[in-house]
Amino acid sequence: MDEEVAGLLAGAPGPDERAAAAVARRAAVVLRPAGALARLDELAGWLAGWQGTDRPAVRRPAAVVFAADHGVARQGVSAYPAEVTAAMLEALREGAATACAMSRHVGAALHVVDVGVGDPTGDLASEPALGPARFRACFEAGRRAVADLDTDLLVLGEMGIGNTTAASAVTATLLGGDVEALTGRGTGVDDAGYARKLAAVQAARRRVGAAAPLEVLRQVGGAELAAIAGAATEARLRPLPLVLDGFVVAAAVAPLEALHRGALAHAVAGHRSAEPGHRALLEWLGKPPLLDLDLRLGEGSGALAAVPLLRLAAAAVTEVATFAEWGLERP
Amino acid sequence: MDEEVAGLLAGAPGPDERAAAAVARRAAVVLRPAGALARLDELAGWLAGWQGTDRPAVRRPAAVVFAADHGVARQGVSAYPAEVTAAMLEALREGAATACAMSRHVGAALHVVDVGVGDPTGDLASEPALGPARFRACFEAGRRAVADLDTDLLVLGEMGIGNTTAASAVTATLLGGDVEALTGRGTGVDDAGYARKLAAVQAARRRVGAAAPLEVLRQVGGAELAAIAGAATEARLRPLPLVLDGFVVAAAVAPLEALHRGALAHAVAGHRSAEPGHRALLEWLGKPPLLDLDLRLGEGSGALAAVPLLRLAAAAVTEVATFAEWGLERP
Repeated sequence: MDEEVAGLLAGAPGPDERAAAAVARRAAVVLRPAGALARLDELAGWLAGWQGTDRPAVRRPAAVVFAADHGVARQGVSAYPAEVTAAMLEALREGAATACAMSRHVGAALHVVDVGVGDPTGDLASEPALGPARFRACFEAGRRAVADLDTDLLVLGEMGIGNTTAASAVTATLLGGDVEALTGRGTGVDDAGYARKLAAVQAARRRVGAAAPLEVLRQVGGAELAAIAGAATEARLRPLPLVLDGFVVAAAVAPLEALHRGALAHAVAGHRSAEPGHRALLEWLGKPPLLDLDLRLGEGSGALAAVPLLRLAAAAVTEVATFAEWGLERP
Repeated sequence: MDEEVAGLLAGAPGPDERAAAAVARRAAVVLRPAGALARLDELAGWLAGWQGTDRPAVRRPAAVVFAADHGVARQGVSAYPAEVTAAMLEALREGAATACAMSRHVGAALHVVDVGVGDPTGDLASEPALGPARFRACFEAGRRAVADLDTDLLVLGEMGIGNTTAASAVTATLLGGDVEALTGRGTGVDDAGYARKLAAVQAARRRVGAAAPLEVLRQVGGAELAAIAGAATEARLRPLPLVLDGFVVAAAVAPLEALHRGALAHAVAGHRSAEPGHRALLEWLGKPPLLDLDLRLGEGSGALAAVPLLRLAAAAVTEVATFAEWGLERP
């Protein structure tokens, strides 16, 4: 699928440069010292570009959380048994999970998409996580989940016991580098579990070696990672601004950037998690995080926590008077 | 006034430890890995303690922005002329300023308090900024502004051309250290203005030497800084949780901590600004910032941007089911 998706991304529309420039111009003349809001002003321009309007706003944010099970979880790489994925899927659907409370308070619609709970992938240490047909089906499910949304800002999140093992395997295979430096404790696995996690990631990388970016994702990723790659691709095609959540989401979308430079121009990093591989990925992607609070939950939570910043960034340009409107000359 | 305020602070109530502990216990058993929300869980416990309830929430945040003029501004230490303070006071009152837009979007009531616009303080480089009577009046005005509020979370902000010069002078006199490392460009002053700013801060520190903390604030601070110290003291007495804005606010409240260790236990740092002195102050106060986005506006803007994080922190404990409620055992 690498060639096909590379073609899609190459043909994707860019941001509305006129809208972005108009917002940058206004940000420079509203009632505050030029540059005083630093990254927030940049974000307002970025939002304008990808929303295609010189009146950017965050009125209808939507979070899509993809859930799936992982064959590698059977090896005991997580502090939690695989059955927790199904229980958390239910909690997410019933409004009882952290992402639900956060979505309510930031005014985001929360969509939960099951792409393989109870149907674990292959064990990435010893076999492809996904066959070609299932990889394509997950990628397309991700695209569909975004295609139908009525939203002005997309948040992508995930839930799946074992999926930081997949994220480390994707990162190590895609970027190279020391596996231990790219593998963290996930939900808080103990020393023995961490040793098994490291071994699984090392075996996965050895097994796959060098491969095309989406092939890496198919081989050592997972069903929700494939769906997230599809969702991010669809967001790029519409286009729609996107807030990335933590390590697993970053690992899921990084292959798109490897496939086509600029594929993720429509995305910002909502936060940086405690996972060491996340730091490496964000540096590689060139995306400084908005929040840096050592969160390590997933479910879209770190990205949801960043949504109000984007809302404020837009309002601080569109709803603030200019010096001229206020009868002042800029010094 | 140092002795008097030290006495007030020594007699101030502490947090409700039972409420804080109850929230910490619940945070450890809600539907996510223990510790996965890291600082957000800590903040929920902190809020519970200072709100005095095991159901912490941010429903009625209130921002108080104090504005005043500074005698040192006549020396050309800012990129802006002193008249801008009055114009910005008007913009803040009329809803046209950045803090107004941000307050609306985070659901905060915004109160603007004039403690000396058009009535500049003495030039801190060569004379006390405030006489004893005016210092006391400003401090009391700050206390009164908070005493009447119906709020569950207080944000303190400021506006005053020249006030980062005062903040640097307070910081350098209180903490010691290299004046240049504690003095930034404020609203973006040019090289010649920056040289004048440095000279003013150095002269202020030489003039005052070692002095009691509130005496430092009186000598080299400003009217809005004195009011902020009063407002933070009143918040500690009620008690009420407090979000600090940037460099000027941190410099205004630091003397309280110097006067009485723990005086600022009810306060978190909303953000870290681009001002180098702010970094030094936050380290000295032991308060890691929630946001680190190089904002340098004031008006309470950086603290307002952090308000949604506190709201989410509370909701992520009070509105999320526990493992037991969800029929799961914690592994």
